[in-house]
Amino acid sequence: MTDVDNLESFGDSAASATRVTPGFALRPEDIAVADAKPANQAVADYAMALGDDALIMGQRLSEWVSRAPEMEEDIALANVALDLLGHARSFLTYAGRFSDKTEDDLAYFRDEEEFRCLHIVQHPRGDFGRTIARMYLFGLYQELLYTALLGSEDKMIAAIAEKSLKEVAYHRDHAEMWIQRLAGGTEESKKRLEAGFAYDWPYVNEMFTDWDELDQLEGVAVRPSTLRAEFDERLNALFDENGLTAPQIPPSWGGGRKGEPSEYLGYILAEMQSLARKHPGATW
Amino acid sequence: MTDVDNLESFGDSAASATRVTPGFALRPEDIAVADAKPANQAVADYAMALGDDALIMGQRLSEWVSRAPEMEEDIALANVALDLLGHARSFLTYAGRFSDKTEDDLAYFRDEEEFRCLHIVQHPRGDFGRTIARMYLFGLYQELLYTALLGSEDKMIAAIAEKSLKEVAYHRDHAEMWIQRLAGGTEESKKRLEAGFAYDWPYVNEMFTDWDELDQLEGVAVRPSTLRAEFDERLNALFDENGLTAPQIPPSWGGGRKGEPSEYLGYILAEMQSLARKHPGATW
Repeated sequence: MTDVDNLESFGDSAASATRVTPGFALRPEDIAVADAKPANQAVADYAMALGDDALIMGQRLSEWVSRAPEMEEDIALANVALDLLGHARSFLTYAGRFSDKTEDDLAYFRDEEEFRCLHIVQHPRGDFGRTIARMYLFGLYQELLYTALLGSEDKMIAAIAEKSLKEVAYHRDHAEMWIQRLAGGTEESKKRLEAGFAYDWPYVNEMFTDWDELDQLEGVAVRPSTLRAEFDERLNALFDENGLTAPQIPPSWGGGRKGEPSEYLGYILAEMQSLARKHPGATW
Repeated sequence: MTDVDNLESFGDSAASATRVTPGFALRPEDIAVADAKPANQAVADYAMALGDDALIMGQRLSEWVSRAPEMEEDIALANVALDLLGHARSFLTYAGRFSDKTEDDLAYFRDEEEFRCLHIVQHPRGDFGRTIARMYLFGLYQELLYTALLGSEDKMIAAIAEKSLKEVAYHRDHAEMWIQRLAGGTEESKKRLEAGFAYDWPYVNEMFTDWDELDQLEGVAVRPSTLRAEFDERLNALFDENGLTAPQIPPSWGGGRKGEPSEYLGYILAEMQSLARKHPGATW
C-alpha cells in the first residue's frame, strides 16, 4: 500500500509558491512511487501526445513572461504556462516509464518528427488577441478531453487528467473573461480578438480528428471526434453572447499526431532543447 | 503494490497553481482593503526600492523559462521569478498609494533613473553558475532584511516582509542546494560557480551600504549595514563547507539606490515596458 504519510513531505511544497511542480499536477515522484507503467507502446504514445500538447503550449505561453500588458496578467499567463508544464511533466514521465526514459529525455532529446503535438499549440504566440483566442480554443478542448478521460481504464491517465482538469478549466475560464473584455472593449480590441480566432480556425479541426493508433486504445483513450459537438455548442454560445462572428475558413489538414509537425516546431525545440543538449545530464 | 487510487489525496490541500498572484504575497487587493498608505514620501520611496529589487530580479530569472537544463529546474526558476514578481506587486502597490499610482504605473511608466534597485539584480543572467551564485547572494540578503523588517513600525512593510520571508528563504535554500551540487560536481561545474560568485562579488557591498534617505526612516527601515556581519558569517560558512574560496575583488561603488542605474537596466526596461507603453491602459 502506498504510504501516504511519507508522501506528505512532498506536499510541503503545496504550501509555498515555490513549489517545484505547480499546483495539482501529479509529480514525477508520485508516479514513480505508484510504480505505474503504460500497458503497451500505444498507451505510452498516447500519454506522450497529450504531454507534448501541454509542453509546447506551455512553452508558447511562457514567452509572455515580462511582456504582458499588466503585471497581473504577466503573472497570470506565467502561471498558466507553469500549470501546463506541470501536466506535461506528468504525462511525459508516465509515457517514459514504458521505455525507461525520463521526462527530460523525452522533452529535450527527441527530434521534431518524434513529437506528437497538435499544430495549434505550435504556432507563434502573436499578439494578446491571438493568445487569448488560442487559450480558449485549446483550453476548452483540454477541458472536454480530460473530463472524458476520467473514465479511462488506464488509471494513471485518468489520475493525471483528474489532477489537471481543474487547472485547464481555469485557463478556459480566464480566456473567457478576456474575450468578454476584448469583445466588449474598443473596435480595435474586438478586431484583434477576431483576427486571433481566424488565425487558429483552420487548426481546430485537427484537435477533433481521430488518428489510426486510437484503434488500439479502446477504453483507454478518448476519440476526440466524440467531443466536437459539445465544443461547437459551447463555442457558438460564447460567440453569440459576445457578438462575435465565427470565421469562415476551411480546415487545415494538420498531421501533428502522425509526426508531421508545422514549420514552427523546430524553432521552439531549438530554443527549448539547446541548453540540455549542450550539457547532457546537466553535469558540466 | 500500485495504488493509483490513493493518488487523489496528494496535494489537494494546495490552492490552485493558477493563482493570479502566487503564494503568500499580499495582493494589491489586500492592500487596498487594508487602506494602508505610506506615512510620507520617504516611506513610499523605501517600499519602491524594495519593490524594484524584487521586480528586476524577477525579470532576470524569468528569462530562464524554457532555457533551464532540466524541466524540473525550468519550472523551479520560473516559480522563484513569480514569487519575486508577487513581492514586487505588493511593495509597488503600497508605494504607489502615496501618490495615487498603480503598480503598473510604477513598473511600466517610470524611466531608468527613477528606479531604485541594486545593481546586482540588474546584471545579465549569464550561465547557470552565475544565476545560482546571485540567487544565493541576493536571497540571503533578502532573508536577513525581511527578518529584520518584521519589527518595522510601518505595519504594511512588516506585513509584506512577513508574507515574503518564507519564499525568499526558500530561494536561498534552493540556491544552496545547487551550490552543493555544483561545488561537489565536476571541475567545470565548480569553476563556473566560482566564476559566478566572482562576477557579482563587487556588487555585494552595495546591498549593505546605507543611503542618505534612511536617516528619515528611523524605526521603519532597516539599515542594511547592520546585516552585513551575519551575511558574511553565513556566506563564509557556506564557502568553507563546500570547499569554495571567496573571491578577492574590490567592491564596486553601486549607486542603484540613488537612481544611478547600471548600463543594463535600460535594456531590461525596454523589454518589460514596451508593450504597456505601446498600449497605455492596455485598451487597444
